[in-house]
Amino acid sequence: MNSEETLKPYVIGLDLGGTNSVFGIVDSRGEIKATTAIKTQGYDNVDEYVAASVEALHVIIDQVGGIDKIKAMGIGAPNGNYYKGTIEFAPNLSWGHSGIVPLAELFSKKLGIPVALTNDANAAAIGEMTYGVARGMKNFIVITLGTGVGSGIVVNGQLLYGSDGFAGELGHVIMREENGRSCGCGRNGCLEAYCSATGVARTARELLETTQEPSLLRELKPEDITSLDVSIAAGKGDKLAKDIYEFTGEMLGEACANFAAFSSPEAFIFFGGLTKAGDLIMEPIKRSYNEHVLRIFKGKAKFLISGLEGSSAAVLGASAVGWEI
Amino acid sequence: MNSEETLKPYVIGLDLGGTNSVFGIVDSRGEIKATTAIKTQGYDNVDEYVAASVEALHVIIDQVGGIDKIKAMGIGAPNGNYYKGTIEFAPNLSWGHSGIVPLAELFSKKLGIPVALTNDANAAAIGEMTYGVARGMKNFIVITLGTGVGSGIVVNGQLLYGSDGFAGELGHVIMREENGRSCGCGRNGCLEAYCSATGVARTARELLETTQEPSLLRELKPEDITSLDVSIAAGKGDKLAKDIYEFTGEMLGEACANFAAFSSPEAFIFFGGLTKAGDLIMEPIKRSYNEHVLRIFKGKAKFLISGLEGSSAAVLGASAVGWEI
Repeated sequence: MNSEETLKPYVIGLDLGGTNSVFGIVDSRGEIKATTAIKTQGYDNVDEYVAASVEALHVIIDQVGGIDKIKAMGIGAPNGNYYKGTIEFAPNLSWGHSGIVPLAELFSKKLGIPVALTNDANAAAIGEMTYGVARGMKNFIVITLGTGVGSGIVVNGQLLYGSDGFAGELGHVIMREENGRSCGCGRNGCLEAYCSATGVARTARELLETTQEPSLLRELKPEDITSLDVSIAAGKGDKLAKDIYEFTGEMLGEACANFAAFSSPEAFIFFGGLTKAGDLIMEPIKRSYNEHVLRIFKGKAKFLISGLEGSSAAVLGASAVGWEI
Repeated sequence: MNSEETLKPYVIGLDLGGTNSVFGIVDSRGEIKATTAIKTQGYDNVDEYVAASVEALHVIIDQVGGIDKIKAMGIGAPNGNYYKGTIEFAPNLSWGHSGIVPLAELFSKKLGIPVALTNDANAAAIGEMTYGVARGMKNFIVITLGTGVGSGIVVNGQLLYGSDGFAGELGHVIMREENGRSCGCGRNGCLEAYCSATGVARTARELLETTQEPSLLRELKPEDITSLDVSIAAGKGDKLAKDIYEFTGEMLGEACANFAAFSSPEAFIFFGGLTKAGDLIMEPIKRSYNEHVLRIFKGKAKFLISGLEGSSAAVLGASAVGWEI
């Protein structure tokens, strides 16, 4: 620990989600010293959101000895642009959907510390590198499997932001050029349309319609099926639910194989709800990867599940961005 | 220019091809001061190849004032591994196809200077960054369109080698999962199977068979058609030949669109024989890119043709690797 770390041993992490904003004060070993949360929505504008955030933050800042103990703040947010510290046209934020919000600057002015911001998948990648299973790795990718499919790519030990801050959109690689599923981005055949939570539910509906396989999922209205239902059914040994993970894993393995041809990563690290299926999803991913990948890459890469713990993972990831400033 | 550059103002570049090995002595502005060449094949083993190379090199080294004027040597070679300085299982090299050849070390011992080696596409990327159209760029990709399709990827101003030195294989991204063309790598549907010189000739044969379009190419035996014939026919305004470039460009544009989702490059730079077709190939690439790419990337990237001059380009690229040591 250098002298600055001794004087300012903490960073603030903010996991800014569509529903909740969770704050944590974290030390350099990834221990969360204090935490608080507010609702993300329900403010007329971003200034009100920041004011409410800072009010909540001051309570936990006092718990760790005041703002002088805080080195910086890191924010993980949807549509976050690291280069500019902005959130840009985030569709799920009432105060951020219609423009460019300079959120890092707003927090920095109110708190008097440096603030960096990046998108949630990049925050997860920095989190894995700082506190998780990617410690010591120089080349890896974190793939977030949630409402959408995101990714944070590290090459030569640095996060890949690209020319405009928006690199790392594995979810929007086109996997099926012909007859591809429609995607929220307005195109067809993207990985996200198959491997996000809604993609998994869609696969369930497709397999229920196109096969005769008996399944617990047939007891539900097709339009009500969620990825959680698939997970519960698979946990009970449901064959069709396992087939859904098989299909999802195969598609992910194929995407990973193409990604290897770009950056030849040491590891693929999966993060988010879908990873709870464990081997049910990881085994088909690995099998499909080794089937699809160029011979020189076969069997080299590790396939890991995030090492950051459950609900605090996103806060840890965001806080790690603060150490990078 | 620092003092070392004043004392040692040159690097040696070696463009090691399947047929010829071309050497150049290059200054920091990319001027080739002296050049020579030997045949790559016809040696019983790599030691004989290196001995013949060094004999030829000594003549041009003397022309620039002796080995003391030379800072280092850079080699661009097929299947080159930058981390290890080796050529690994290069199918087209009689003395290198069956094993791992420590070529950088062999040259370094004979010449008494540091030697670095990378694959030819990576050398082209470093060449563009050092002397070509990518000067000042931090995020770009060079796509080499020759016998194969290769790529050299630069992110954050550094070449992307990945965990094992083999990153950057854009030619082996699978573009068509179903009914894809067979590729030399043993898989199906790779970009290289469509957009290499042999891929272009194959497209010609397919279009001649599946369409009734009149064409100068119908005067040739289908099995004899090469990408050069397509180029000549297109130069004469042949509609079918233009359709071949259209198809090739569309496929490349689609691959570039997927690549943008990974690294969001400032520019796509094309290098090699196929670029001589100019707008015939570049226009469909750009059109297809903008059709396929995620909205946030639309219209941002530049599409450029290599700025390194003709036959000396590969030598310049290789020499640039020498400056990086």
